[in-house]
Amino acid sequence: MSAGEPAVLSLDIGGTKLAVGVVTSDGAVHGLLVEPTRREQGPDAIISRLFGMGRSAIARAGLEVAAVGISCGGPLDSTRGILLSPPHLPGWIDIPLGDMARAEFGVPAFLENDATAAALGEHRFGAGKGVSTMLYLTISTGVGGGSVIHGKLHRGAAGNGGELGHVVVRPGGRMCSCGRRGCLEAYVSGTSIAERAAEALASGEVSTLADADPLTSVEVADAARADDQLARRIWDETTDVLGQAVTDLVNIFEPELVILGGGVTRTGSMLLEPVAEVVGRDAMPPAAKSAQVVLAGLGDVVCVAGAGVVAFDALTGANHG
Amino acid sequence: MSAGEPAVLSLDIGGTKLAVGVVTSDGAVHGLLVEPTRREQGPDAIISRLFGMGRSAIARAGLEVAAVGISCGGPLDSTRGILLSPPHLPGWIDIPLGDMARAEFGVPAFLENDATAAALGEHRFGAGKGVSTMLYLTISTGVGGGSVIHGKLHRGAAGNGGELGHVVVRPGGRMCSCGRRGCLEAYVSGTSIAERAAEALASGEVSTLADADPLTSVEVADAARADDQLARRIWDETTDVLGQAVTDLVNIFEPELVILGGGVTRTGSMLLEPVAEVVGRDAMPPAAKSAQVVLAGLGDVVCVAGAGVVAFDALTGANHG
Repeated sequence: MSAGEPAVLSLDIGGTKLAVGVVTSDGAVHGLLVEPTRREQGPDAIISRLFGMGRSAIARAGLEVAAVGISCGGPLDSTRGILLSPPHLPGWIDIPLGDMARAEFGVPAFLENDATAAALGEHRFGAGKGVSTMLYLTISTGVGGGSVIHGKLHRGAAGNGGELGHVVVRPGGRMCSCGRRGCLEAYVSGTSIAERAAEALASGEVSTLADADPLTSVEVADAARADDQLARRIWDETTDVLGQAVTDLVNIFEPELVILGGGVTRTGSMLLEPVAEVVGRDAMPPAAKSAQVVLAGLGDVVCVAGAGVVAFDALTGANHG
Repeated sequence: MSAGEPAVLSLDIGGTKLAVGVVTSDGAVHGLLVEPTRREQGPDAIISRLFGMGRSAIARAGLEVAAVGISCGGPLDSTRGILLSPPHLPGWIDIPLGDMARAEFGVPAFLENDATAAALGEHRFGAGKGVSTMLYLTISTGVGGGSVIHGKLHRGAAGNGGELGHVVVRPGGRMCSCGRRGCLEAYVSGTSIAERAAEALASGEVSTLADADPLTSVEVADAARADDQLARRIWDETTDVLGQAVTDLVNIFEPELVILGGGVTRTGSMLLEPVAEVVGRDAMPPAAKSAQVVLAGLGDVVCVAGAGVVAFDALTGANHG
């Protein structure tokens, strides 16, 4: 790499972690920094820390950046660069992140829904290279999604590109952070996996999870793998609900590819296999035959790489049709 | 109109009726003929009758046709022109409708999912003119859907363009014709509305519908309008389930427009208003704000007009990207 190579700064604001890096046009992430979000600090302190990470990443990468790409959970207004009121970041209301980043770094800044950005990243550099129609689902603190249709990022009329985590899978079921009941997010997010396990423990069920502190989706997955009954039941419910929702999405879009990414997918085949099995069994046969379900190719840096693609595309006017 | 005007023959095979007409490039339908399908006759007799209607429509329109467009419920293989095994036409297995129509009429023939064709018809000539992202839902004998994304018909990798009727709205609920339980189609199709009313009557509930013969969704809607308690309950359940499913689709696609068409939508505002109300209330706020829910602009000829657009586009190579 050289100081003259085109590069952009990527800022990814997750509910659990902040990830920052400098992305070059080949999709490589330079100077990557990851920190816990610490949501309790509120927007001002977190944004200040995020921008500090940005300055460090630029210094570490030794590259000049031509733009900033920011990825965050929606809903947001990508055209105006405003974060509206993302359920995974309570108290972040109408934050003009685009303007703030432009003022901080002195270059154009572009805000995109994190799952939309990740979809774009996977399509350009990951598992979806060359695919015409693909869906990306992020199973993380929350659940989001993005799609590429006819080879092009789908932004949708509201600019969030589709909130795939907010489809009802259990009518009247668990309260979702969006205010509706029974959403996919309320069952398969990392947050929900941990919550459901905690509820089962609180009801007096015996489990090795009683000793887990903190109790997260990672501990639930580990205990399920070790055949803990409670953990196994929570995990099976998770993969079944996710499998049914992906089946619906496969019927709806008839995609070539469904990519699963986000923290919970670090469990690998333990998540992927049962989900792919449900889709193969329950989707309409032609759609099931055409659609492959795979894990994200870019792993943990999918949103950082995706936000980089967002910034590069915005600079060149691509994907703004 | 003149004998030299470009025209195509449209054949629409519904579960309840066959509709045939000659479509000119302005979207006008000439020599329209409509007959009951009489499903019990089986594919050979029905296709022979359908082709006879086609010959009559051409004679009545006084136009030469350059192609045949055929719309039918899926699943089907539009590339090869083969009807696979549509749930609304039991016994129609692997019917090579494209080849049959080409042999009959001596011109190229193109088969398309009926809701996909209708989506295209509405986008070109109906309520969706000029719109970038729109969904079309047909609420008829069955429930199907189609979408236009980035101004272009979405065919999907399996060529059915999305089976919007086969998303689960009630997990473990009513058996659907597709073999899965709890699909949207199993709750809001005309068939289901009538069946659920008949089941409630059979369980001994008192209703003015006891005298209806045959008992169809039209009678249920009429009785609901006259405040029959049983009919009202069935109707409210129908519009609520449909509203929730459209809410999911609005969250998923963030469309500018959702168009409702098909026989059941002849009930007009009685269907549209409660559905639009649920979407406005329950969809993610940015998506709800961006999406309008309206009735089909082409009414009963939406599939015939749509199959015409399919044929015109196939002749010119449009929408085959």
